[in-house]
Amino acid sequence: MVVTPSSLSNLYRAYVACLNRRAWADLGRFVDERVEHNGRPLGLSGYRDMLVADTETIPDLRFEIALLVTEPPHVAARLAFACSPNGEFLGLRTDGRAIRFTENVFYRYREDRIATVWSILDKLAVERQLGPA
Amino acid sequence: MVVTPSSLSNLYRAYVACLNRRAWADLGRFVDERVEHNGRPLGLSGYRDMLVADTETIPDLRFEIALLVTEPPHVAARLAFACSPNGEFLGLRTDGRAIRFTENVFYRYREDRIATVWSILDKLAVERQLGPA
Repeated sequence: MVVTPSSLSNLYRAYVACLNRRAWADLGRFVDERVEHNGRPLGLSGYRDMLVADTETIPDLRFEIALLVTEPPHVAARLAFACSPNGEFLGLRTDGRAIRFTENVFYRYREDRIATVWSILDKLAVERQLGPA
Repeated sequence: MVVTPSSLSNLYRAYVACLNRRAWADLGRFVDERVEHNGRPLGLSGYRDMLVADTETIPDLRFEIALLVTEPPHVAARLAFACSPNGEFLGLRTDGRAIRFTENVFYRYREDRIATVWSILDKLAVERQLGPA
């Protein structure tokens, strides 16, 4: 497969659409069996478990691509979220309050699937919205 | 100027080398006069002040590029830091302790200078290293 920046961008957009549909059965079309996330070798099933748990804590979770930078085999995305996490999120008690935050995340693809993820969520932004503990 | 991914990557690497040399007088070669950082219109002088303050809090601050993804006019970088911030850093008391953390950061270039920066530092990683407050 010849991977161009635009074909890889399209593949990434299809992955995000899959997440937003909660189409967990399709996740293997986009994510490698041996995927690693922030240094943890989750594998596809562990990665799916992580995403399912995220959507249980945050039922209104929706991934919005604010910025996409593609240079095969890497994709870098700035994701924007406006959602209401139940209970605890990033070690903070959100208790269903509406918050906005971003994630800056890098992906390395192996062929046409995500093999490695390096993600950082903007915890400082969430803290500012929640105010003093 | 025709900007290719490799020329923009080289320009970004020269910017990082400038930071590591503390060559503040050269910063204007790499950063636009009207630069914005995380939504704040700092301008070149405000941006320089921010960097100078960072290196005063963290005298051993050194920017290391762990991953670089370039699609003009954007550069996305994962930066790795091993340093010892004095006093308070990210709202946490580090008091000179050695820590490691990463930054995932996006830049939009205007011509050959950085015009917009969207940065997220991995505060969760720093918290884990410092232990319970």
